[in-house]
Amino acid sequence: MSFDNSQKIGILGGGQLGKMLIQTALDLDLDISVLDNDPDCPCKSIATNFVKGDISDFQTVYDFGKDLDVLTIEIENVNIESLKKLESEGKKVFPQPHIVENIKNKCTQKQFFKDHDIPTSEFILVSGLKEIADNKEFLPAVNKIGVGGYDGRGVQTIRTEADIEKGFDAPGILEKFVDFDKELAVIVARNSDGEIKTFPVVEMVFHPVANLVEYLFSPAAISNHIAEKANKIAIQTIEAYSLVGLLAVEMFVTKSGEILVNEVAPRPHNSGHHTQKANLVSQYDQHWRAILNLPLGDTKDISMAAMVNILGEENHEGIAQVEGLEKILGQDNVFPFFYGKKKTKPFRKMGHVSILADDFDKLKEKVNFVQENLKVVSKK
Amino acid sequence: MSFDNSQKIGILGGGQLGKMLIQTALDLDLDISVLDNDPDCPCKSIATNFVKGDISDFQTVYDFGKDLDVLTIEIENVNIESLKKLESEGKKVFPQPHIVENIKNKCTQKQFFKDHDIPTSEFILVSGLKEIADNKEFLPAVNKIGVGGYDGRGVQTIRTEADIEKGFDAPGILEKFVDFDKELAVIVARNSDGEIKTFPVVEMVFHPVANLVEYLFSPAAISNHIAEKANKIAIQTIEAYSLVGLLAVEMFVTKSGEILVNEVAPRPHNSGHHTQKANLVSQYDQHWRAILNLPLGDTKDISMAAMVNILGEENHEGIAQVEGLEKILGQDNVFPFFYGKKKTKPFRKMGHVSILADDFDKLKEKVNFVQENLKVVSKK
Repeated sequence: MSFDNSQKIGILGGGQLGKMLIQTALDLDLDISVLDNDPDCPCKSIATNFVKGDISDFQTVYDFGKDLDVLTIEIENVNIESLKKLESEGKKVFPQPHIVENIKNKCTQKQFFKDHDIPTSEFILVSGLKEIADNKEFLPAVNKIGVGGYDGRGVQTIRTEADIEKGFDAPGILEKFVDFDKELAVIVARNSDGEIKTFPVVEMVFHPVANLVEYLFSPAAISNHIAEKANKIAIQTIEAYSLVGLLAVEMFVTKSGEILVNEVAPRPHNSGHHTQKANLVSQYDQHWRAILNLPLGDTKDISMAAMVNILGEENHEGIAQVEGLEKILGQDNVFPFFYGKKKTKPFRKMGHVSILADDFDKLKEKVNFVQENLKVVSKK
Repeated sequence: MSFDNSQKIGILGGGQLGKMLIQTALDLDLDISVLDNDPDCPCKSIATNFVKGDISDFQTVYDFGKDLDVLTIEIENVNIESLKKLESEGKKVFPQPHIVENIKNKCTQKQFFKDHDIPTSEFILVSGLKEIADNKEFLPAVNKIGVGGYDGRGVQTIRTEADIEKGFDAPGILEKFVDFDKELAVIVARNSDGEIKTFPVVEMVFHPVANLVEYLFSPAAISNHIAEKANKIAIQTIEAYSLVGLLAVEMFVTKSGEILVNEVAPRPHNSGHHTQKANLVSQYDQHWRAILNLPLGDTKDISMAAMVNILGEENHEGIAQVEGLEKILGQDNVFPFFYGKKKTKPFRKMGHVSILADDFDKLKEKVNFVQENLKVVSKK
């Protein structure tokens, strides 16, 4: 384990996760190139080197990576074959391409859980609407598209036979509907030496319309027993993959206290944004430590926290304008983060706010205050 | 008080203070242009817009500022006349140019303290060596050059008549030598609405050769009475200037418990680096809040802290290489920050390390560990 500060690093994807990765990478003065097709993406002006190009194109990814030393991702829809070729030529590619390949398809991801005794809900692989109809006795269920779902898209609840037409006529999974009590997430990191650390378990509350995390609390209001179980399952999952990097493990706690893994993401995650303020080592710091094989940082939290996503206001589309910032900065321990997206549209993730407080009631009060006072609208 | 996220901001100077200002400005998605003559300066690749040019040249500064809305500095040696012209044309220039003008000359700065009853050591304004010799009964004293001193240069102790030749043959001050017990610093912020907040008092330990802050502790090991006095003096000083922005107030505590202001700096300061980790709102965050007239953040510290400057190793000059990073990241609550300077030379400020711990002994132990294990050398 030794650190070379002249190594060149590349990130595939230039969105907000990439931006926050770069912000913290600046502490270590890392040399970071970014590949993204959008010349106005959040990483554009802060990467050491920005390359405009399609992260899903074989040749583009290969040309981007061939002169770099370490490659990582901030989104899963990347060209896997190209990353595998770069890996075979000796580049460090973390998370490893075959793991991203497994995870980016919800069918193979779910099958992986089953094959490795990672607790998850019952499911059937389906090729489209006809196979959903063939399995109507399996309802109520959730139909997820195999590839291409993102930020709440590609997921449809099918309660009864009448809902089947709302499903996806594409390869995907039909998961047994879980009558869950809470949704939890654990961010776990692993470096090449095999060192593993988990962040405290968080509890997510979803937006009923947008199917996005609306806000979360950390640590989750659960028993120590459940927290330990969630923690163990996160470790079991990253070990099963032998993944180097971060894994966000989303889980359900059923009403009977069972924990089921819902989905995983092999990168920094919405459910870890609050670690920028609630922890001394954030998920972004930890990502770099993991993929550069540095000692992982202490993940103890310094406070209870909440995180609210700032979504584009409904009925507003166009150049983004922030309203109410001075009001929320007038509250102690309320910290806004904007992603630098020039344009807003309804439910687009424009930023988030991290909030620290000593108890749940104060956190909830501040979550409400932020939701009432901070808006991203379109410029008139 | 209302925030416009489309306003364009400029920083004069592209060094490490500018870099750390930009890192935190990214949270608010501020649009930041940087002017610096060095195309390899730390801000180069992270500014929204980098302009190569001389910050001390009238026309260059004017051309840089004329299409921006808010201007600030990260170093004092800027063209004041140009900033005054921009201010007169309606630009927001914070700190205000006439204050920077007063502070950048140690003669006028010291005279300001005297005129505003800010406690400071006795002094004589001198035009050069001859006037130092004329005032030999004033020795032992410290001779400071009026303009152009920086990072330990431009300061010379003159204990006896024999030392006079070591002084500066240029306009400056001769300050009565203070037999001090400790050196303290307080970072204080003020916004346009006149809201003022101070960070906890820190204690500085200087490098005996380089005359740079070698490390500091926060909070200072002083009585509440001394801390309150230091705090009051910092507030008195920023109010006397009516400064908008940050003011770093360096002070001596004499052996008799008197506090004397040594020097001030109208910007983020070496003595506030630890606030990136020891406080939820850092001096860099606070600078933006102050100059954008946003509510100032809570300055309470979350832990005791130390900060160690990482200086270029003696006998090493050339392309910088970091040694021992993996060792110091293996310690809990030890956080390195590198400034992105490509070349090292003896005593050049290459980065710093912030350290948190529960007591002074643990802090000191980790300070020693960092000093022994982390080196910036030149590449072989």
